Amino acid sequence: MTDPIYSHEALHRFAYSIFVRIGCSEEQAALATEVLLRADLRGIDSHGIARLSGYVRLWEKGRVNCTPKISIVHETPSTAVVDGDKGLGLVVAPKAMQIAIEKARVAGTGWVSVKNSNHFGIAGYHAMMALPHDMIGIAMTNASPLVAPTFSVERLLGTNPIAVAIPANEQPPFVADFATTTAANGKLEILQRKNQLAPLGWVQTKNGEPTNNPNETRQGGALIPLGSDREHGSHKGFCLGAWVDIFSAVLSGANYGPWVPPFVAFLEPPTDPVGEGLGHFFGAMRVDAFRPAVEFKQHMDNWIRRFRSAATVEGQDSVVIPGDPERIMHAERMEHGIPLNQKVVEDLKGLGERLQIPFA
Amino acid sequence: MTDPIYSHEALHRFAYSIFVRIGCSEEQAALATEVLLRADLRGIDSHGIARLSGYVRLWEKGRVNCTPKISIVHETPSTAVVDGDKGLGLVVAPKAMQIAIEKARVAGTGWVSVKNSNHFGIAGYHAMMALPHDMIGIAMTNASPLVAPTFSVERLLGTNPIAVAIPANEQPPFVADFATTTAANGKLEILQRKNQLAPLGWVQTKNGEPTNNPNETRQGGALIPLGSDREHGSHKGFCLGAWVDIFSAVLSGANYGPWVPPFVAFLEPPTDPVGEGLGHFFGAMRVDAFRPAVEFKQHMDNWIRRFRSAATVEGQDSVVIPGDPERIMHAERMEHGIPLNQKVVEDLKGLGERLQIPFA
Repeated sequence: MTDPIYSHEALHRFAYSIFVRIGCSEEQAALATEVLLRADLRGIDSHGIARLSGYVRLWEKGRVNCTPKISIVHETPSTAVVDGDKGLGLVVAPKAMQIAIEKARVAGTGWVSVKNSNHFGIAGYHAMMALPHDMIGIAMTNASPLVAPTFSVERLLGTNPIAVAIPANEQPPFVADFATTTAANGKLEILQRKNQLAPLGWVQTKNGEPTNNPNETRQGGALIPLGSDREHGSHKGFCLGAWVDIFSAVLSGANYGPWVPPFVAFLEPPTDPVGEGLGHFFGAMRVDAFRPAVEFKQHMDNWIRRFRSAATVEGQDSVVIPGDPERIMHAERMEHGIPLNQKVVEDLKGLGERLQIPFA
Repeated sequence: MTDPIYSHEALHRFAYSIFVRIGCSEEQAALATEVLLRADLRGIDSHGIARLSGYVRLWEKGRVNCTPKISIVHETPSTAVVDGDKGLGLVVAPKAMQIAIEKARVAGTGWVSVKNSNHFGIAGYHAMMALPHDMIGIAMTNASPLVAPTFSVERLLGTNPIAVAIPANEQPPFVADFATTTAANGKLEILQRKNQLAPLGWVQTKNGEPTNNPNETRQGGALIPLGSDREHGSHKGFCLGAWVDIFSAVLSGANYGPWVPPFVAFLEPPTDPVGEGLGHFFGAMRVDAFRPAVEFKQHMDNWIRRFRSAATVEGQDSVVIPGDPERIMHAERMEHGIPLNQKVVEDLKGLGERLQIPFA
């Protein structure tokens, strides 16, 4: 059975109406919807409209504030700490990234650490905000603990993604956006849904043993940092996840490590918080704070062309430039629509009935 | 046969004399020696005095300038581009990091991209320069092409390391310093020397096939980005290596990708350079540009303690906090001396005879 397909406009209308219904201003509802649906358009289905119900449930529990006062609590010429006031991360994050961009205009670069926020959608959206300004964008966030550091059986980190967006001239931009684990949780969820096994190196059991059962994460098991095991560099993936956690939360005053509040509303946040909400970190660097923008972008074209045209292993057409698959998917789904898993459709229909907004 | 042991002082004296002999000022020779030997002290033997002959051979070929005019060629309040004037990376890098630190004092953060440099020793040294100033330090460098991006059979990237140093209060600092490959080239060299096999996932043949022969890199094979293969996230390791390359070289005007000049003097640099020398990237962020330093460092203590005390898999005492093994090694080698491989000793003796400076 193929998944039913919905137009971007139809999903946009529905999500926007839901955000307005739970109390967001029209401006914030529009922003949240745009960020949320960018995930679906780019093919990162786990972070798109499939999460809409989850945000609503957090709001119902009082853990999301739909009328936040997002404010700068500390700043220098090139830095700021932003208090998200428990707002939707989908709204707090682009506003914080905008502050980073404005700082960069004056100081060359801008760096913003955020506390008291929630899940912010895909990191790539926020990093890419820098591109039209001829800036390099960086976005990171911590997340609910689901990852065991090398040698640990405890889950102490989230999948803590990093995104880096770099403008080019004639070539499309370089956009890396990846979880600092071997595999993102969204990929695991797909296997769980399809009842398929995971490659060894993605998941460990609650005792830290290798497993290919994707459901082990529901029984005390954990995702594994990028690298898979010590011999293949999982301690480096741990370093990356830790870096994201510290920049996002220890710098800002958010919760870090195992204290990060869970995204799912049925799990309560820790009763001994070490900060406020979860944390993000954003950076914007004006390219011409280093060298003339045209020069930089022409060399990026050359970089991208050289890597794209590399000789490949048998069976592969070309080296994949980060951002290419998502950009192609975006164009395709804008034209042909967005397929949704049947379970997601049912969930959205239920949500619509509950809030009296018919789904699609 | 155990390796002979030399005191830090003896090796320091020798390296310093060599640097002076090839024309470095006393100040630059002292700095180069300190950076170089920090690698040996921290147990990263591949990047320490074992490379001294290599630097001298580059100088003999006219590819290292021992009297460089290191200068800022462009700057904004929070950024600078530094021209290393073909100087030793061991000297250019700490001077560039110092500029980042000075920028951070005024603007909150400082970011310096460097062109026209050479191999800079261990990234960790430069990142750690930020720590006494209650700053977070970041250091990256590109390097001779030795790594094949996912799906490529061509070597287009170096092992492009990233270091991040973060101060704590009572706890030692968090210091991550890692190649963005599954395994650093130094680890491969150890296997080559001992005639041992490498784990699958470290190296591929010239056709891109998996191999456990560590010598394949000498026959057109390549190191593999962190992740080992596509299924285990090697495209993420490729993103990391690319990020380092672009920040270090496309931002500064150095050579990038396959155009990075080789460290070994017997290989000529590409005849169609796209920039000058190789590139580095440094960052310094004042902790109190985000929140009071004491508060930040106390939370870092809490972060480190929590992770260090995590429940572990059987057979492991604790989660390893990044920087712990190197700090312990540093203390031990300061006290008991530095073991050198017999081949390295012979090489250094030869170097000493050639330059009329007796070795140790």
